[in-house]
Amino acid sequence: MSLSMYCQSIEVSLGTGPDMCDITSQLQRVIRKSSVTEGQLSAVMVGSTGSLTTIEYEPGVVEDLKRAINMLAPPGIDYAHEAAWHDGNGHSHVQAALLGPSIVLPIRNGNLKTGTWQQLVAINHDNHPRKRTIEVTIIGTKDR
Amino acid sequence: MSLSMYCQSIEVSLGTGPDMCDITSQLQRVIRKSSVTEGQLSAVMVGSTGSLTTIEYEPGVVEDLKRAINMLAPPGIDYAHEAAWHDGNGHSHVQAALLGPSIVLPIRNGNLKTGTWQQLVAINHDNHPRKRTIEVTIIGTKDR
Amino acid sequence: MSLSMYCQSIEVSLGTGPDMCDITSQLQRVIRKSSVTEGQLSAVMVGSTGSLTTIEYEPGVVEDLKRAINMLAPPGIDYAHEAAWHDGNGHSHVQAALLGPSIVLPIRNGNLKTGTWQQLVAINHDNHPRKRTIEVTIIGTKDR
Repeated sequence: MSLSMYCQSIEVSLGTGPDMCDITSQLQRVIRKSSVTEGQLSAVMVGSTGSLTTIEYEPGVVEDLKRAINMLAPPGIDYAHEAAWHDGNGHSHVQAALLGPSIVLPIRNGNLKTGTWQQLVAINHDNHPRKRTIEVTIIGTKDR
Repeated sequence: MSLSMYCQSIEVSLGTGPDMCDITSQLQRVIRKSSVTEGQLSAVMVGSTGSLTTIEYEPGVVEDLKRAINMLAPPGIDYAHEAAWHDGNGHSHVQAALLGPSIVLPIRNGNLKTGTWQQLVAINHDNHPRKRTIEVTIIGTKDR
Repeated sequence: MSLSMYCQSIEVSLGTGPDMCDITSQLQRVIRKSSVTEGQLSAVMVGSTGSLTTIEYEPGVVEDLKRAINMLAPPGIDYAHEAAWHDGNGHSHVQAALLGPSIVLPIRNGNLKTGTWQQLVAINHDNHPRKRTIEVTIIGTKDR
């Protein structure tokens, strides 16, 4: 069976970082449009102050992860980036680099094959609200 | 030469987190079955309290990495997740989210092209032993 | 339209870790050679003391990220790896495992589709200068 590809970008609006939202159902709609039933989806956050990962998307984990992210690179301390650029988001750059911009997820039987309590989240680390773009590339086979 | 795809899941049994095991030879067997000689393998940990990365798999690095993971999100402190769910694994969720569930590795000449002392490890972060599933998707070309 | 694949490795020389360099333009040249206009690029650092991520590549962020990496796993403390191997790079292994060896980036209109101020960096974490190899796999379609 020959392989197909489908590319699409999705957009989300996020508050001052670290802020995050669940994009699992948006990705599921992209998979539907692609008609791919077996394969993989890669998602990449555009911009150097955003990241992607998976969590159990419930308020407690969201709060815990925000706290841990702010401990990796605290907003209040000195950053060399700010000394030169004075935009106050030195911590945002470091946080995003440590978490990473890309993720790959499996598609099986036309659905994302993740855990029941495992959602894909888009994270804004910037020091102001941002509309963020995620580029999605799906590669796989179609049932018929 | 046209591209092929091969999908398979593998399972590993891990102890209370952070615990990890080397899945490189299992992946190598999946590559054999796929007959793909040139391309890429993506591996994704199913579930929000597991992760994947590469290390030199020797007891010292394993111990050092476990310690570092427990410093990222220590088991003993308060987590908002636990305040609501009382399952004692708030740290597990944060640790797994920071490490990330997915990885991509190159296939060259029918083998994983990684360093000699670079093995793929599956990590369980949960606060009890778990059987964990890793979804593998291989895309590439076959020699003949 | 049928899918194509193109594989190539690139090499970079880096100083004592954490040291990093911008490999975006090298990747762009690989994309040109592949003739792929729409798809994805995966890049993987060979070796267990290197990693890949994206940053705004300017001296301030580079300095800030190096500092944060050295806080994740400080060079000066005891590591079990060193107790056995005496090669002084216990911190390098932990740092690289936490950042991760692989990344995926989208290709759109024949170019990497990343942010204007988002560059792909190769990081050496080892305790001496290293020539590092990155394996690149491009999968996608060609315009004509």
